Amino acid sequence: MAVATQSLEELCINSIRFLAIDAVEKAKSGHPGLPMGAAPMAFVLWDRFMRFNPKNPKWFNRDRFVLSAGHGCMLQYALLYLTGFDSVSLDDIKQFRQWGSMTPGHPENFETPGVEVTTGPLGQGIANAVGLAMAEAHLAARFNKPDCTLVDHYTYVILGDGCNMEGVSGEACSLAGHLGLGKLIALYDDNHISIDGSTDIAFTEDVSKRFEAYGWHVLHVEDGNTDLDSIEKAIEAAKQVTDKPSMIKVTTTIGYGSPNKANTAGVHGAALGTDEVSATRENLGWDNEPFDLPQDVLSHFRKAVDRGAQVEQEWNQLLETYRSSYAEDAAEFERMLSGQLPEGWDRDLPSYTPEDKGMATRKHSQTCLNAIAPNLPELIGGSADLTHSNLTELKCSGNFQKGQYENRNLRFGVREHGMGAICNGIALHSSGLIPYCATFLVFADYMRAAIRLSALSEAGVVYVMTHDSIALGEDGPTHQPVETLASLRAIPNLVVIRPADGNETSGAYQVAVANRKRPTLIALTRQGLPNLAGATAEQVAKGAYILSDCDGTPELILIGTGSEVQLCVAAAEKLTAEGRKVRVVSMPTCELFEEQDEAYRESVLPKAVTKRLVVEAAARFGWERYMGADGDMVSVDRFGASAPGGIIMEKFGYTVDNVLAKAKAVLG
Amino acid sequence: MAVATQSLEELCINSIRFLAIDAVEKAKSGHPGLPMGAAPMAFVLWDRFMRFNPKNPKWFNRDRFVLSAGHGCMLQYALLYLTGFDSVSLDDIKQFRQWGSMTPGHPENFETPGVEVTTGPLGQGIANAVGLAMAEAHLAARFNKPDCTLVDHYTYVILGDGCNMEGVSGEACSLAGHLGLGKLIALYDDNHISIDGSTDIAFTEDVSKRFEAYGWHVLHVEDGNTDLDSIEKAIEAAKQVTDKPSMIKVTTTIGYGSPNKANTAGVHGAALGTDEVSATRENLGWDNEPFDLPQDVLSHFRKAVDRGAQVEQEWNQLLETYRSSYAEDAAEFERMLSGQLPEGWDRDLPSYTPEDKGMATRKHSQTCLNAIAPNLPELIGGSADLTHSNLTELKCSGNFQKGQYENRNLRFGVREHGMGAICNGIALHSSGLIPYCATFLVFADYMRAAIRLSALSEAGVVYVMTHDSIALGEDGPTHQPVETLASLRAIPNLVVIRPADGNETSGAYQVAVANRKRPTLIALTRQGLPNLAGATAEQVAKGAYILSDCDGTPELILIGTGSEVQLCVAAAEKLTAEGRKVRVVSMPTCELFEEQDEAYRESVLPKAVTKRLVVEAAARFGWERYMGADGDMVSVDRFGASAPGGIIMEKFGYTVDNVLAKAKAVLG
Repeated sequence: MAVATQSLEELCINSIRFLAIDAVEKAKSGHPGLPMGAAPMAFVLWDRFMRFNPKNPKWFNRDRFVLSAGHGCMLQYALLYLTGFDSVSLDDIKQFRQWGSMTPGHPENFETPGVEVTTGPLGQGIANAVGLAMAEAHLAARFNKPDCTLVDHYTYVILGDGCNMEGVSGEACSLAGHLGLGKLIALYDDNHISIDGSTDIAFTEDVSKRFEAYGWHVLHVEDGNTDLDSIEKAIEAAKQVTDKPSMIKVTTTIGYGSPNKANTAGVHGAALGTDEVSATRENLGWDNEPFDLPQDVLSHFRKAVDRGAQVEQEWNQLLETYRSSYAEDAAEFERMLSGQLPEGWDRDLPSYTPEDKGMATRKHSQTCLNAIAPNLPELIGGSADLTHSNLTELKCSGNFQKGQYENRNLRFGVREHGMGAICNGIALHSSGLIPYCATFLVFADYMRAAIRLSALSEAGVVYVMTHDSIALGEDGPTHQPVETLASLRAIPNLVVIRPADGNETSGAYQVAVANRKRPTLIALTRQGLPNLAGATAEQVAKGAYILSDCDGTPELILIGTGSEVQLCVAAAEKLTAEGRKVRVVSMPTCELFEEQDEAYRESVLPKAVTKRLVVEAAARFGWERYMGADGDMVSVDRFGASAPGGIIMEKFGYTVDNVLAKAKAVLG
Repeated sequence: MAVATQSLEELCINSIRFLAIDAVEKAKSGHPGLPMGAAPMAFVLWDRFMRFNPKNPKWFNRDRFVLSAGHGCMLQYALLYLTGFDSVSLDDIKQFRQWGSMTPGHPENFETPGVEVTTGPLGQGIANAVGLAMAEAHLAARFNKPDCTLVDHYTYVILGDGCNMEGVSGEACSLAGHLGLGKLIALYDDNHISIDGSTDIAFTEDVSKRFEAYGWHVLHVEDGNTDLDSIEKAIEAAKQVTDKPSMIKVTTTIGYGSPNKANTAGVHGAALGTDEVSATRENLGWDNEPFDLPQDVLSHFRKAVDRGAQVEQEWNQLLETYRSSYAEDAAEFERMLSGQLPEGWDRDLPSYTPEDKGMATRKHSQTCLNAIAPNLPELIGGSADLTHSNLTELKCSGNFQKGQYENRNLRFGVREHGMGAICNGIALHSSGLIPYCATFLVFADYMRAAIRLSALSEAGVVYVMTHDSIALGEDGPTHQPVETLASLRAIPNLVVIRPADGNETSGAYQVAVANRKRPTLIALTRQGLPNLAGATAEQVAKGAYILSDCDGTPELILIGTGSEVQLCVAAAEKLTAEGRKVRVVSMPTCELFEEQDEAYRESVLPKAVTKRLVVEAAARFGWERYMGADGDMVSVDRFGASAPGGIIMEKFGYTVDNVLAKAKAVLG
């Protein structure tokens, strides 16, 4: 078959296929199968539907595209290159999966403009897409006017069998159905093959029926390999249904065109190999050399550049109209897009004196959220069905529900993992929205894969995690974090803050809201705590600071976090009364302390003072860094127990007497 | 209404309710709502169906009961007490949620005989139940004979809305449907209320339809509050369908009987309060004092004791018959139940010399699995769709599939979280089965909640985690563990082993298989490694050991794990050649090293030698413990990158030259 006999569309689709085939071949690493099979649907979507501007990947009103099956990233790189994004050149494609390239092994939003979210870990992308669609629905409800539809884009996803097997996708899609997110359109690459072979060995459920059960509008394209019109009609039909998200099952052949490897797991995650590449060229009538594309193809795809400029220009005109008719809203909208926080957003954050009534830091958190929410309209979030335990409801708003998307209280249900991934999507909608989400600290484990992706993909999600130690009491060890703080502090680019009282909680929110390029996790108590003399909001940003001190060089430094700082203070008072020289350091966040300069760190924790006692109701793991050569820790190095919180704290040694005894042992 | 007017069954059900109400009231903590609403289905199930022996909770052929909605644990404690288990007395119920009691805040298998698995974190129980049913199916396929059905029990679950919202339950239930586990029967307490209120705010999907999509047999009891016969008929019908798991949606009222709190979130997770308890007593016609039950009720429930003795005796007779007809199988069956490993199970584990060809430790792991599998028939497991990357297939067996349950290769699909929870169920079937499961190390994050429960609930699962560092290369930062090892080492009661070569991999399996009361996680390389002089299988059990040494006291100790030990060896050789006194310590597992006596630990890492360099391609977090006051580490303290593995290792400083330079810097 000669190239000339192929239609332009076939050539376009084969161009996608061979860019993927040849890039993977050159890298000797990657996943050619998905791009080969999904090229037709991707072509139809990007060529006939998607509104975007290749020369301004951040144009606000673009349709969002998420490749949830992120291993097939060559599909996305091919599309970015072909449609004229500056971020991916042909040279970049030749550098697929190489050090420093724009074309890493999975799509990374922080590397490659045009990539919306970071995918690869399966199921995350579709859940991110639910977040993107929620962000769009919210902004549309908030800013659109009867005569001016300023916010109006679709969120398209391509996901595979793997995504559909992952629980996180089920959680997010169930919620998407509940919320009736009509502008979310998912194309399910139904190719029947996963890494282990046919889906017959592990995945024989009726996916369409499941999505119907979630409340989605479900369609099926039986021949996703060649029937472009049916793909087009399905997407068109999906767009017509505005009160439900749509799932289009597109049945395809993985590795389409490879005579010996199509429809096998062999084409999923490895280069085809020289012989099979040749055979595939032959089979698909592709005479071009690697990375050489027909000029017609490039010309056709590159029409996206003019088209994109045009749609953006039209939208800019719309924005002009909006500005003149709705000046205040426009200013607010543009402020949000710029990423600038509103003047005085934190002006109502409370401050406290030691005389003020002590409260649980989760209650302080509630006060903070409700103090900033009226001044920070981009704040949007909620809890995984623990609203009245996490205390995360915004009193100034209602529930974000189908048809009430203007509201800011998100109701995630008992879906922690989906919640985290959805918040990543909201943050990476890059429209200024600041998502927060909440559960018990121990259930960070359920959503850890999403938290890691917040950190990796620079999504400024605020994680509000209450019930932060064994002191939560009766719920027992399944609910009591012990190792959780350590496990979170180990994640790069995540700021973990455990405030000690009301002032530090206010400081935690100042840090968290300001952190727009990294996530912040705030660990909060269930139990009441006193407000501490010397604790301030400002110093939280320094990570650790001297809460109380002695004259001259201390003999001993007591380092506490959160609910245990009060024990350090009380023990220090007794030691001081006994004539010992003791410093108390409150250390709400290790990460920020490490970012301070050497002089500041030395001023708080002088190297010469090696007698230190750390007091935190959590595992010792990781605290050796600050413990000093002669130090110790009052730590929890086993699972917790079920009993009233006060009794547990006593049994585990979190009493002034025990801290005092341990301190004396360190002093020697 | 007077008590006398109630039927005995109503009295039995109200006894469950009031044990829950009064225990929660006394503790001023707990969840009365579920027990009050689910008491009828639980009564019917335990009274009319469940086969168990209260006086021998470990009787092998008992029906398994899992309360997946673990917060409703008073339901289970009430049933255990009422049916005559010795583990839960009336005094124990009065001690609900108190320090040291048998009745902790959520059901814990390691505390309370009669509790099969530890639940509370939602969705885990139903997934554990899938594992229990898989264990039953496997043993039945393996041991039953046409004339002797030795293994024959059901697995019953009560789960709630929360469980059904969690992704882990979807993963496990999809697989259960695929596998056609006919003896798994789940009762879904459809009470329309979760902590945040009506499920209308977040959970409006059609759960029954979803389960049908999974391939389950689905039934509905419309009045689960009073219609005991319909509950009975539904369970009967569920038992009749032997080729599909059954889900019975039982529509109930949470907090049934409470005049002011029933059908509200208020009754979910807090004591009713004195007034409402009185009103509920009045409403349900319950005149008894707290914890005082009608004698008829106790007599009726306690028939379970005789019934249980009888069913166990009948089964013991069956076992006798089996012994005489199938002596060899019987011996094997009983050996497994006893928990004793077969003689010489590890005799074929390979050992290596430095001359043997180096391989990736994942390949050594493959060799080990296949060396022990023929000698260790209780080994059963598989991968979450990465079989040929994790290299976990047992060549001596086929795929565990519907109708082929005798096989030992489990195909989990891309369902890491479900996989972990299923393996917990298999381990806690307590029939001697040793489950293993596999994925990439970084995806431990997806299943962390299950891994934590392995550790907490003493489930001896073997986690086989490959691609254990940035050296995996091109897949990039989404797939490269950095903080993952630290996050896992922080979990109490989990043994994390990172073997350095073939011998240490054999040692890792010796430890993992022997660890029947705690999980073991083995971290394995993608890339090839040399076999090291001095590395032995035996010393893995010590956690860390001297791999190579100098004469006299070392100036410097190089501590390595896994793939980085070779760098330590090479750097030590160069330093030695330069006249420095250097020790190399291989530290495959910190946890086991900490369990050695002080003398051994001092012999390996003498306190006086404070110049130490740790080399591990992972985060520094947690390594300060071993680094020494003057030590350092070659660590990865950012996310990885996409490039060929060798280049990444070089760029991140994992070269002999860089280790040497760092070592010299430490030496000063």
